[in-house]
Amino acid sequence: MSARQVVIIGGGFGGLSAAKRLRHADVQVTLVDRKNHHVFQPLLYQVATATLSPGDIAAPIRWILRRVHNVRVLMGEATGIDVHARRVELADGGVLEYDYLIVASGSRHAYFGHGEWEQYAPGLKTLEDAIAIRRRILIAFERAERATDAAQRRALLTFALVGGGPTGVELAGTLAEIARQTLRDEFRSIDTSRARIVLIEGGHSILQTFPEPLRAAAKRSLERLGVEVRENTVVTAVDAHGVTMKSGERLDAGTVVWAAGVAASPLVATLGVPLDRAGRVIVERDLSIPGHPEVFVVGDASAFLHQGGMPLPGVAQTAMQGATHAASNILHLMRGEPTQTFVYKNLGNMAIVGRNSAVADLPWAQLRGVIGWLAWLSLHIVTLIGFRNRVVVLFEWAMAYFTFQRGARLITEQTPVERGLEPPRAGAG
Amino acid sequence: MSARQVVIIGGGFGGLSAAKRLRHADVQVTLVDRKNHHVFQPLLYQVATATLSPGDIAAPIRWILRRVHNVRVLMGEATGIDVHARRVELADGGVLEYDYLIVASGSRHAYFGHGEWEQYAPGLKTLEDAIAIRRRILIAFERAERATDAAQRRALLTFALVGGGPTGVELAGTLAEIARQTLRDEFRSIDTSRARIVLIEGGHSILQTFPEPLRAAAKRSLERLGVEVRENTVVTAVDAHGVTMKSGERLDAGTVVWAAGVAASPLVATLGVPLDRAGRVIVERDLSIPGHPEVFVVGDASAFLHQGGMPLPGVAQTAMQGATHAASNILHLMRGEPTQTFVYKNLGNMAIVGRNSAVADLPWAQLRGVIGWLAWLSLHIVTLIGFRNRVVVLFEWAMAYFTFQRGARLITEQTPVERGLEPPRAGAG
Repeated sequence: MSARQVVIIGGGFGGLSAAKRLRHADVQVTLVDRKNHHVFQPLLYQVATATLSPGDIAAPIRWILRRVHNVRVLMGEATGIDVHARRVELADGGVLEYDYLIVASGSRHAYFGHGEWEQYAPGLKTLEDAIAIRRRILIAFERAERATDAAQRRALLTFALVGGGPTGVELAGTLAEIARQTLRDEFRSIDTSRARIVLIEGGHSILQTFPEPLRAAAKRSLERLGVEVRENTVVTAVDAHGVTMKSGERLDAGTVVWAAGVAASPLVATLGVPLDRAGRVIVERDLSIPGHPEVFVVGDASAFLHQGGMPLPGVAQTAMQGATHAASNILHLMRGEPTQTFVYKNLGNMAIVGRNSAVADLPWAQLRGVIGWLAWLSLHIVTLIGFRNRVVVLFEWAMAYFTFQRGARLITEQTPVERGLEPPRAGAG
Repeated sequence: MSARQVVIIGGGFGGLSAAKRLRHADVQVTLVDRKNHHVFQPLLYQVATATLSPGDIAAPIRWILRRVHNVRVLMGEATGIDVHARRVELADGGVLEYDYLIVASGSRHAYFGHGEWEQYAPGLKTLEDAIAIRRRILIAFERAERATDAAQRRALLTFALVGGGPTGVELAGTLAEIARQTLRDEFRSIDTSRARIVLIEGGHSILQTFPEPLRAAAKRSLERLGVEVRENTVVTAVDAHGVTMKSGERLDAGTVVWAAGVAASPLVATLGVPLDRAGRVIVERDLSIPGHPEVFVVGDASAFLHQGGMPLPGVAQTAMQGATHAASNILHLMRGEPTQTFVYKNLGNMAIVGRNSAVADLPWAQLRGVIGWLAWLSLHIVTLIGFRNRVVVLFEWAMAYFTFQRGARLITEQTPVERGLEPPRAGAG
C-alpha cells in the first residue's frame, strides 16, 4: 500500500526498459504515454515507404508490460512537471504524484526555427507521421499519372529528402526501389523509373557518425540505385512546390521529407533546469537533473555531456541503457546508497542503404554490402517486440525482396488539401 | 486510337469484375475510384476489431489490374454524371468522356434521416471507418481504466451495436472475445471481461436473410459468448452517451457502432432516373438505366427488381455477377446485338459468429458451428486478393485463435475530441 511511487513518462525504448528494470522492486510504477502503443522506430521508414503496416512495428504498451504486475499503464499526455510538488500534470487535467520520476519523452523533428516548413516537409517520428509520408509519396505518383504538363509531371516525380542521416539514407534507398521496380508496370502515362530521388545533406557527408570507408560505400550504393546524393548543400527554404538551396539553386519537388533535425520533447522545458540548444536537459553524471536527485531524464530528451563532452547519439541503445541505469539509481536511492555514474557503451551503428546493402559500424568490425545487410536484418528482427511482429515482418521482407511488392500501399485518411488533385487529361484519348 | 471508351466508376468488387471482363475487348477502359485501393469488405470488421491491419484486406487497384493493359486506373472522385453529354465529372474539375458507362459506386451507411447520429455511431464501409471504430473501441477501455466513477466506468465498458445483420453479429462476437480474452491480463483497475456487448436489432430477428434454424444457432452462439441480443428493439435516439430505445429504455454506452442501414452512393442521383427509397437506381432487366442503354448500374448502387420483386442482397457476389453481366452487355451492344437479361445466381450467405462458430446458408446445405466456421474461413481466404494478403491473414487468424492476441491494437490519428480523455485517478494510490 505504501510502496513508493515511480512515474515513467514515455513508452519508447527508454520507458519500457525502465519499467522492466523495476519489475521486482518494491515500488508502484505508473507509465504514461500519449499513445497506447510502443513504436519500433528503426523500422518507421518502412511504414513510410509502404513495405510494412503500422501494426507490424508497433505493440500496445500495456500488452508488452502485461506480466510486469507492479506497472500501471496509462494513456495520457504529460504537459508539465512540478518538481517541487513532485507532480506530473496531464493534458486532461489529471495529476500523477511521484516519489521518483523518469522522463523518457523522446524528441520530435525540428526545423531550425522554421516551423512553417513542417506542412510541406513532414518528419518521421510517429506512426501518424509515417502514414502521412506514405500517403504523400503514393499521391505524388497518382497525381503524376494525371498531370498534363511536363514540368509539373517532372516535379511530381521528384522526391527531396532533407537530411543524410540513417533515416534519409534509408528512405532514399527504398524510394528508389519503389520507383524503379515496385510500381513499374502499373502506370499508363508515366514511367515511374524516371523518378528523381534527391538526398540533400547540409554537412560534408551523409551518415556523418559513420567512419569514412562506410560513408563512401553507402554513397556508392545509393548512386548505383539512382539516388542523387547532394552533400554540402544547405536548404534555405521549403514551400509547397519544393526546396531552395543556399546556392540559390531551386529543386521543384512534389514530395519533400524532413530528416534533418530533432529537438527534445517540449515537456522537459517545464522541469526548470538548463537545456542545450536542441532543448535537451543537461543531466548530471547519474542522469538526474540538477537539484533534484529523484528526477531522471534519459534518451533523446537528455544531453549527457560527461563522456567526451558531446551528447550521446539519439538511438535506441542510448535510451535503453540510460533508462535501465536511471531505474537502478532509484533502487540505490531507496536503499540510501549513493547513485552511480552512467557509462554509455557504444554497441555499434547501422544503416540500410538498399537491397543487399547496408553499413554497420560495430566495435569489432566494419561491415558493408551483403554482410552488413544480413547483420542489419538479423538485428532488427531479433530486437523487434513480439513473435507476431517478427513473423509478419520477415514475411513482408521476403515478399518485397523476391517480388518487389509492398504490402501496405494504401492512401488513407487524406486531408482536404491532399484530396485536391490536379485536373486529369480529358478521358477520351 | 479510336477504340470505344468505357468508364467504370468504383474499384470495389463490381468495378474490378467489369474491368476484368473487358480485358480482351477492343475498348479503352478507365476505372476511377476515390481511393487508390480496393477493400475486401467482408473482413472490414476484423480491422475494426484490431485483428487485421488495413493493409491485410486491401490492395492497390492499379496493382490488381496491372496486367489488364487496356485499363487505365485513376484516383479521383466522381461527383456527377451527364448522361446526355456522356461525361463523368470529377471533384477536381476533371472530366471523363465515355461511350459506355458502368456505375459501381456502392453504398454508404445511412441513418434513416438522422445524419447527426453518425458522429456518435460510426458505420463500417471504408478502411477509414474501420480505423475510427477500432480507435473508439480501444479508447473506451483506456478511458475505463482511468475512470473514477462506477457508472461512468460501466458506460465505458458498454458497447452498443445497432443492426443485427452479418456486420453487427460479427462485430459483437469479436468484441466479446477481445473483452473476455485478449485484454484480460492487461488492465489494473478494470475487469475487461465484465464489458457488456449489446446487439440491437429493430426487426424480429438477427440475420434476417438466413433461415430460422441458422438464426437460432447464431443467437445461441452469441449468447454463449456473453453478447446480449435484443431483437424487436428499435433505436430512436443516439447521442454522445449512448442510445435510447423505442420503449423509452436507455442504454448508456461509451461506444456505439452503426450497422443498421445503407443507402446508395449519392452519385447515382445525378443520373436523373428513378431511385428507390434507399437511393438506388431502379435498373432495367439488362442492368442499364431507363432511356440510356449505354449506362449500367450494378451492385449496391442499383435495385434490380426483376427477380422476385425485391432488390438483390447487398453482397459481393451481387456486384460481381452484375458487373460481369453489364460488361458482357457492352460487348453485345458493340456488336449490334441485343442485350441480355440479368439472372442473379444466389451462391449462398455466410456470417461468422465467433470462435469455432459460423452460419452458412448454401444452395446445397445449411452449415453451422465448427463446420460453418471452417467453410467461412476457407471461402474468405480463397477469395481474398493477393498471395501476400492470404498468407498474412491466415497467420493473423492462427495467432488470434491460439493466443487470443490481436495484431493491430493501435490507436492512431485521434481527433481532438477523442483526445479529451477523462481525468484519471490521482496518481498516488
